[in-house]
Amino acid sequence: MQFHDTPRFPRGFRCASRLCGLKPSGRDLSLFVSDVDAAAAAVFTRNHFPGAPVILGRETVRGGVLRAVVVNSKVSNVATGQAGLAHARRMAVAAAAEVGTVPGRVLVSSTGVIGVPLPIEKIEAGLVGMAAELTADPLVGAVGIMTTDTRPKAISLDAGAAVITLVGKGAGMIEPNLATMLIYIFTDAALAPPALDRLLRNAVNESFNMLSIDTDTSTSDTCAILANGLAGAVDETVFQAALTAGCVRMAELVARDGEGATKLLRVTVRGAESRAAARTVAKSVVNSPLVKTMVYGADPNVGRLLMAIGKCVGVQIVPERTHAWINGVPVVAVGARASFDDAVVRERLAGDTIDIEIELGTGAAAATAFGCDLTEGYIRENAAYYSS
Amino acid sequence: MQFHDTPRFPRGFRCASRLCGLKPSGRDLSLFVSDVDAAAAAVFTRNHFPGAPVILGRETVRGGVLRAVVVNSKVSNVATGQAGLAHARRMAVAAAAEVGTVPGRVLVSSTGVIGVPLPIEKIEAGLVGMAAELTADPLVGAVGIMTTDTRPKAISLDAGAAVITLVGKGAGMIEPNLATMLIYIFTDAALAPPALDRLLRNAVNESFNMLSIDTDTSTSDTCAILANGLAGAVDETVFQAALTAGCVRMAELVARDGEGATKLLRVTVRGAESRAAARTVAKSVVNSPLVKTMVYGADPNVGRLLMAIGKCVGVQIVPERTHAWINGVPVVAVGARASFDDAVVRERLAGDTIDIEIELGTGAAAATAFGCDLTEGYIRENAAYYSS
Repeated sequence: MQFHDTPRFPRGFRCASRLCGLKPSGRDLSLFVSDVDAAAAAVFTRNHFPGAPVILGRETVRGGVLRAVVVNSKVSNVATGQAGLAHARRMAVAAAAEVGTVPGRVLVSSTGVIGVPLPIEKIEAGLVGMAAELTADPLVGAVGIMTTDTRPKAISLDAGAAVITLVGKGAGMIEPNLATMLIYIFTDAALAPPALDRLLRNAVNESFNMLSIDTDTSTSDTCAILANGLAGAVDETVFQAALTAGCVRMAELVARDGEGATKLLRVTVRGAESRAAARTVAKSVVNSPLVKTMVYGADPNVGRLLMAIGKCVGVQIVPERTHAWINGVPVVAVGARASFDDAVVRERLAGDTIDIEIELGTGAAAATAFGCDLTEGYIRENAAYYSS
Repeated sequence: MQFHDTPRFPRGFRCASRLCGLKPSGRDLSLFVSDVDAAAAAVFTRNHFPGAPVILGRETVRGGVLRAVVVNSKVSNVATGQAGLAHARRMAVAAAAEVGTVPGRVLVSSTGVIGVPLPIEKIEAGLVGMAAELTADPLVGAVGIMTTDTRPKAISLDAGAAVITLVGKGAGMIEPNLATMLIYIFTDAALAPPALDRLLRNAVNESFNMLSIDTDTSTSDTCAILANGLAGAVDETVFQAALTAGCVRMAELVARDGEGATKLLRVTVRGAESRAAARTVAKSVVNSPLVKTMVYGADPNVGRLLMAIGKCVGVQIVPERTHAWINGVPVVAVGARASFDDAVVRERLAGDTIDIEIELGTGAAAATAFGCDLTEGYIRENAAYYSS
């Protein structure tokens, strides 16, 4: 799949970001706009305590049409009751007025601390005049939605004659159950909302639903796609392949930039009895604190792989058929520690991307999960997130 | 329940510990002996890669009679294949010879690094003469089974005319699925193996099965009980209550001494639709890295409680019926952040024991889970466990 060296928007999409005063510095408000109405689909968190923007967003996306997405960072507008929902609606009204559409065509998101009232007046004031600042660089919008992310995330790639652009943020509280984090996908392909919904769910299933930073499921997770049709019809198979590849790449970017992370951890399970079994084992390994700290310390303590595979009690595991590799080096063979040179594995574990491959030998199904190492940085960021 | 100020053994039990050379210093070998044959029961890890001592232990306990327990620390004898099983058998033979019984009445355990061959000669040599050193202080045996534990763990309490003594170790890789860690329970009550097995499973279900340090399930978990009958028959109801109370107390000790832990975290869920639902929510909260770091940092970021409750997608959660308290202070009311003084919650979170209580308002079932905070210490201990 050919990713663009510098991310760019498809035809007819632009964005802007500003500091409206929620953060002490940087940007805290982003606006993404399509020149024309776009078909839309989205998936949201399955958490029982969805934020007000998610409650409103479900209603908005049901219409199948979006013109704009407005996002603030720093305050998530979650656990804020009816006042929070009223604030989310006011945010849609203000953004709609700025871009010249109706509130029902504006998707609203908020990310940051839970349980704090949204300073809606600052956001309303901040939106005024943003339409005049819209630019073709998706990274401008990506900056405004960052919380503990260390870098803005935007990528783009071709899908036939169309372009797909993904803008996202992640960092912590990430173990999606349906969608994850805040991910906005823009394309100039012409696709109807039902097709868009199906294509999005397929892509999310292979990417964001296999991503975990810390097993915690955010109350704000949102992944939306806008297709404005300016590039005309596309081959759905080509589009699905590009969309999935884009989502996988974005999932990797989010994982690599997990709170405190120093490495991307990719766990691929093959030869499983079923796809569900492969996913369960891949997630168990990618989520194991002992595997994550082993990766962080580049410590060839490979017995922990067996532990993390073996604790999947509902999955068929046959020890003598189980094998594993770390960045290509066999570390588990026939269900026991393989004979290997500690120094070699230590060196492989020192890289920026750690690929753990597991063969279960009980079937033909496979799955890949995305995560990161667990470091003192995660602890430091989260021991005083609210107070800092 | 009346715990003894200083732990002591029931009639007829003694122990010894030595340094046989697996660790550079301290003690690494413990022997627990009953003067007479004892009825026995045990539960073991459900991990698909059980250590050799667990494989052997299942066979041994099937006989229903034990005279001794021998345990080494530092090397777990897991993922060591047929050679490992032969080593475990040799360990039983050597201990049986030392205490004057048959190998089939000796339970063997090993704890420590996975995937490293057991230095069986050192253990065999170390056992010689240990029977002459047997003492009535259970803490002597508790010291020899420590790995990353910071303190030895032994408690005792009365059960009618009998005494129940628990000796255990924990620290990391703890999210039991049936048993957990290494826990040995000694009693002079007279109980037949089937009754003992039932009583043990009931107690474990309320205690060690509700304990989680890090969601990782060890390959060596063992919880065994020996009843030598020297105190005669006991009332089973009285015994069950004492056994459960002892197991809960030991679970709390293990949680408080989790790797890097600075606090005991106790999460009680009430008003759940079912016992399973209460357990699921209690475990979700006790395992949430974001709740654990919040507790560590004494940061009143209570929205994370809602997140950790709400991510239990299979459980009936009604936001407007959900309430929560931290050490008695209402922090969540009617499904949203309650109005409270940050300074007060910060102060309550600064204590050694953090009690989180959650009311779901959907039924009458309850459960309590035991865990600890997540700190830089956990990362440091586990980033180089194998190499250090």
